[in-house]
Amino acid sequence: MTPTREDLERARARVEGVVRRTPVETCRTLDRMAGASLFFKCEHLQRGGAFKLRGATNAVASLTQDEAARGVATHSSGNHAAALAIAAARRGIEATIVMPVDAPAIKRAAVEGYGARIVSCGPTLADREGTLADVVAKSGAAVVHPYDDARIVAGQATAAIELFEQVPELDVVIAPIGGGGLLSGTVLAAKFFSPGTRVIGAEPALADDAAESLRLGERQPQRPPRTVADGLRTAIGAIPFEVLRTHDVEVRTVSEEDIVRAMRTTWERAKLPIEASSAVAVAVAIDGGFANARVGVVLSGGNVDLTRLPWQ
Amino acid sequence: MTPTREDLERARARVEGVVRRTPVETCRTLDRMAGASLFFKCEHLQRGGAFKLRGATNAVASLTQDEAARGVATHSSGNHAAALAIAAARRGIEATIVMPVDAPAIKRAAVEGYGARIVSCGPTLADREGTLADVVAKSGAAVVHPYDDARIVAGQATAAIELFEQVPELDVVIAPIGGGGLLSGTVLAAKFFSPGTRVIGAEPALADDAAESLRLGERQPQRPPRTVADGLRTAIGAIPFEVLRTHDVEVRTVSEEDIVRAMRTTWERAKLPIEASSAVAVAVAIDGGFANARVGVVLSGGNVDLTRLPWQ
Repeated sequence: MTPTREDLERARARVEGVVRRTPVETCRTLDRMAGASLFFKCEHLQRGGAFKLRGATNAVASLTQDEAARGVATHSSGNHAAALAIAAARRGIEATIVMPVDAPAIKRAAVEGYGARIVSCGPTLADREGTLADVVAKSGAAVVHPYDDARIVAGQATAAIELFEQVPELDVVIAPIGGGGLLSGTVLAAKFFSPGTRVIGAEPALADDAAESLRLGERQPQRPPRTVADGLRTAIGAIPFEVLRTHDVEVRTVSEEDIVRAMRTTWERAKLPIEASSAVAVAVAIDGGFANARVGVVLSGGNVDLTRLPWQ
Repeated sequence: MTPTREDLERARARVEGVVRRTPVETCRTLDRMAGASLFFKCEHLQRGGAFKLRGATNAVASLTQDEAARGVATHSSGNHAAALAIAAARRGIEATIVMPVDAPAIKRAAVEGYGARIVSCGPTLADREGTLADVVAKSGAAVVHPYDDARIVAGQATAAIELFEQVPELDVVIAPIGGGGLLSGTVLAAKFFSPGTRVIGAEPALADDAAESLRLGERQPQRPPRTVADGLRTAIGAIPFEVLRTHDVEVRTVSEEDIVRAMRTTWERAKLPIEASSAVAVAVAIDGGFANARVGVVLSGGNVDLTRLPWQ
């Protein structure tokens, strides 16, 4: 189930020309704070405002003609929904997104703007799964899970593959972990394309299921959704967990205070308007004791409700 | 007094390696809204968070050794202060910034962080000028005016010179106008390096002194400081006015509502956290009727108080 080097190379070829080769930015203030050279991979400037388009594009491109003709579906209130909508539109197939009724208006509007069909459901996971099952029963659509899917993991790996091309000789790469698609993809990208680079996961202390899962050797349940980093509230998926466990990946946790401070500094000084989930990786970079190292930081996304910033 | 082609070329050589060659970004959502292809020159990613470092660097580099030894001084509560501080530190000379006591804390902290000396003064223009005169009398420092200075105009021109290299065949370039350093520099850059490109100024309707000055053929006084675009409240300077007048430049005005909407859309969709003064140029681009044109937009800066966003 773990993607191979060939899977990553195929993903790389598929995303080319569809996803944006996002820029890498630097910031002297953040370098001073970290005592290191930080290189920010700007996936908040990706189409759809997050790295998610990489995995969605690879998954949609993997479908046979017959499968594609029946469309794709998922349940998501977040960035994966927008990404799948864009990837499906690009292939000219239908995307159906099951979204809880309380999803932010800006995310609904974005998904509709990309041409997807939204089916509303209740707020619980059971509501979402039931509604998605109905959609699939009627349409025969292929379900594309946001992270527990080898095609998604291989697609997310392309962010780090690009970063290794853009910034040679990185000592460390830090990526946030929620469901684990991005982090496990980053681990595989380093393994195959930059074996000298150590990969570290960044997780809110209030959503530390991945760190605990690795410590205990067994997947832990989702924590109560209290962290400001709303993209990282999800529990780690089975495929990502297997990748992290077998590669002995370290996941570090940071406090809410450090997350908000890192987010604000990244906005104010680096002028990169990232979401809190990305700031978790910045916070680990600042506090990590990476003296004089060359540290890549994957800024996963920038979809923020501008009327509800966490320092207000 | 108007800078020549040679002045611009010298400025270009002087800023090289000191100021950042900022990237150019695009955004499909804003393209759709404008019905045109917009190319955003990201001076909010410049060191100091604004284009001002270009002019300040050129002015500081223009000083003789003797002049430089006595340092530089200015009065400014804004981006010019930070820029002069950085440029002076780069040459290893002293910068003294006269700042009103009510200047935002974030701007004071930034200026101090760059190593400049701050001298506080009262809130009126007379306070500032009197305090600056005292500083100069004691130190012999060279005064670097934020816009009414040919060295500054030539320096600000380098943003557009880069843009013309990065994006060929622009039909139009839009730049905001406050004191006029950036816009007059952009006009001269187009004249000498991209004569097929038309330059348009963007001004808040609540601070329309430049548009009125051009209409009446005579410089008009500053308007009451009511516009959200606080960087554009200044009245146009004599040198910039002469450049705009002799080149028959059009300045368009936009409403506060359009400025705030353009700013918010640029943050939300393009993920470019610009200040309101830059959004004035975006608003002109959106409403300008530039159907199918290739339009450069100079995003002048990104120094924003994140606790006081204008849509809140």
